[in-house]
Amino acid sequence: MDSSKVWQADRLAGNDSSVWVTITDMVRKTGAINLGQGFSDSPPPQYLCDALSKVLQSGNYMFNQYTRMYGHPRLVQSIAKMYSKLHQRELDPMSEIVVTAGAYESLFSCFQGLVNPGEEVIIIEPFFDCYVPMTRIAGGTPVFVPLRPDGTEVKTSADWKLDPAELESKFSNKTKLLILNTPNNPLGKVYTKDELTVIANLCIKYDVVCVADEVYAWMVYPGSQHVRIATLPGMWDRTITVSSAGKMFNATGWRLGWSVGPKHLIKSLMIAHQKAVGTCCTPIQEAVAEVIDVEIDRLEQNPGQSYLNILPNVELLPKRNKMVDVLKAAGLTPVIPEAGYFIVADWTKLGVDNTTFNDDSEDPIDYKFVKWLIMNRHLVVIPVSTFYGPEHKHLAENYIRICFFKADETLDAACQVLKSFQSNAQT
Amino acid sequence: MDSSKVWQADRLAGNDSSVWVTITDMVRKTGAINLGQGFSDSPPPQYLCDALSKVLQSGNYMFNQYTRMYGHPRLVQSIAKMYSKLHQRELDPMSEIVVTAGAYESLFSCFQGLVNPGEEVIIIEPFFDCYVPMTRIAGGTPVFVPLRPDGTEVKTSADWKLDPAELESKFSNKTKLLILNTPNNPLGKVYTKDELTVIANLCIKYDVVCVADEVYAWMVYPGSQHVRIATLPGMWDRTITVSSAGKMFNATGWRLGWSVGPKHLIKSLMIAHQKAVGTCCTPIQEAVAEVIDVEIDRLEQNPGQSYLNILPNVELLPKRNKMVDVLKAAGLTPVIPEAGYFIVADWTKLGVDNTTFNDDSEDPIDYKFVKWLIMNRHLVVIPVSTFYGPEHKHLAENYIRICFFKADETLDAACQVLKSFQSNAQT
Repeated sequence: MDSSKVWQADRLAGNDSSVWVTITDMVRKTGAINLGQGFSDSPPPQYLCDALSKVLQSGNYMFNQYTRMYGHPRLVQSIAKMYSKLHQRELDPMSEIVVTAGAYESLFSCFQGLVNPGEEVIIIEPFFDCYVPMTRIAGGTPVFVPLRPDGTEVKTSADWKLDPAELESKFSNKTKLLILNTPNNPLGKVYTKDELTVIANLCIKYDVVCVADEVYAWMVYPGSQHVRIATLPGMWDRTITVSSAGKMFNATGWRLGWSVGPKHLIKSLMIAHQKAVGTCCTPIQEAVAEVIDVEIDRLEQNPGQSYLNILPNVELLPKRNKMVDVLKAAGLTPVIPEAGYFIVADWTKLGVDNTTFNDDSEDPIDYKFVKWLIMNRHLVVIPVSTFYGPEHKHLAENYIRICFFKADETLDAACQVLKSFQSNAQT
Repeated sequence: MDSSKVWQADRLAGNDSSVWVTITDMVRKTGAINLGQGFSDSPPPQYLCDALSKVLQSGNYMFNQYTRMYGHPRLVQSIAKMYSKLHQRELDPMSEIVVTAGAYESLFSCFQGLVNPGEEVIIIEPFFDCYVPMTRIAGGTPVFVPLRPDGTEVKTSADWKLDPAELESKFSNKTKLLILNTPNNPLGKVYTKDELTVIANLCIKYDVVCVADEVYAWMVYPGSQHVRIATLPGMWDRTITVSSAGKMFNATGWRLGWSVGPKHLIKSLMIAHQKAVGTCCTPIQEAVAEVIDVEIDRLEQNPGQSYLNILPNVELLPKRNKMVDVLKAAGLTPVIPEAGYFIVADWTKLGVDNTTFNDDSEDPIDYKFVKWLIMNRHLVVIPVSTFYGPEHKHLAENYIRICFFKADETLDAACQVLKSFQSNAQT
């Protein structure tokens, strides 16, 4: 086309690539063992699929047409019932909840709904990578503050800590939001009540809204306790809590999430959501409402039967322990996660000769290693520097993130690849 | 909360309310007969629901987890196959198509992906109302140009016309996009090739991208022919064509749409989409791919069996004709639509005394009438001034939009309400 115009809007500048797009493409091309993206290679619980089939076969036309823009009426009732207990307050389903196309679109609506050009967003590293482009697209400036391994004897995700003075130094009169991800992806860190109190008090002192991305809240392992920052004194009025049905029910492809918070903040998310997506998928919402109602009953009457307890304790815990053993056997020192289905480990212990990467790009060394690993050993993991801003990538370049919510055969195959380095090193 | 800050982002200013939110709330409260929003009160074709049930019961975990961000691989293949024929060119499924959370999010991605603050967007009135807030949220300025009834003998939607000189006067060096909606909502107008050529030549002359919202393309009645502006000379390179699976298959609640266009434009939509929504619902995409493949075969081998032909010719045409008769019997002069499932009619012929509305708001008179009609006669229709910008609302204040894709009982009940005015007037 003979055009003198630049077509692409300036807000997208610098966002052409995404680690997920690059790695998904490499997976497709190589057929590699995929411990990359955060999802399982087993089907969701059968009753979830059955609930949706039942909705589809009900013959009720309303389940296939537009529903309420801010959330299907039955679903917001169910969410209100479940989260009123978790938040220790009675939630109004119509004004304190907004349902979105995944937790992802809840996050987007937070930035679009609350951030003006020139305002600052404090992002704790390591972070789910979308926070940064979402901040920038809204015209905001990301301000990074890192979790650091505390000492040399790092054993679990609890050993990665924020420096309170460093955190406070990031607040200014331009700060609009702080993004908190607990349990954290990629570390699996579950912030303690004391740690959250430090963050909460700074949000109150500097009059800042906290966006609490809690999509891994239902995958906490024994010994740790998930605390919702919205329940700390003075925080309900300034916190938006983001959740994901896809993470709760092992169906990340269903793309359904929600935000809970005070009416004066949720209202802005509702408008942003309504102008971007309009309404969410009706049959999916009806089915998720059905299974949430089932879970509410189970949690009250027979908690051991609840999928929300079975998922962390029966499905995930043995896989986490297995992956810890695999990594140790391969000579690595894993950072044992307190929650979630990721584990972080220092890949440099594998003894790979970096010159074999043959990679002249300006990518961080962990990203080069991962590209090499995919192409040459057909194993996909995620470089942890992806989850740090430009200034602090060096803190994470020794780490890779491994998703262990995979079938035993997949974990065994990955184990073989990882062990092969050790035998190479020994020979 | 004791806060000195304004939390809501400035980009949302003036978007607190939406006619859809207001009217949906009124419908819920009154249980009124709903000829308002554009969807059917009958279930979608059974094979669509069966396709999704089959996906859910397949046990294939991949159908329930994240898929490719720009569109599920099987679905973009199916869309490419179907639309290559319609666009008379071979489409590349990976770079010339992006799948979105409804056509609605495709539109949002057009504005976010292409419009900078200060740039202008030409919007032809009457328009699907979301174009305006989507333009404003991107920082753009909507520039309106009206379709007007051509003379007093207006019989069909073809009698509403653009003035080519008036249209050209709206172009400037700030113009980035022109939004074309053919077939048009609410009129049902199907632009002729001659009319489209005028628009195309202006887009080329002023170096402007055309966003062609063609979600009603599969509902054209005999005697009219849908022409895709992307197929006119010089237009492929500057046109994004937006489509909706929800509209195609009578499942608006499924929230799946897509945009087709040249790689250099689709790329910007892909980035905008990826940063707002990430990926779309996987099982829905797999099921829609399945039914598109079925329809491709039917259209080739047995077109009379294709749902895409049954929908307009067997399901909708009798309903359109029935609604025309009802409106005539009630003393109204309907504007017979060439496509879609809306009909526009002059409500002032009902002889309602406007003073009975008892409404001091600044709303246009058709909006006052509609609110009165919902509350007092329990019939929901949409005021057509909603679809015009502030300068030209007076052109449409005599019209209401009626959705006739409803069960016969619903149409009969609406008929009774409309006829009651005439008997009142006669007594």
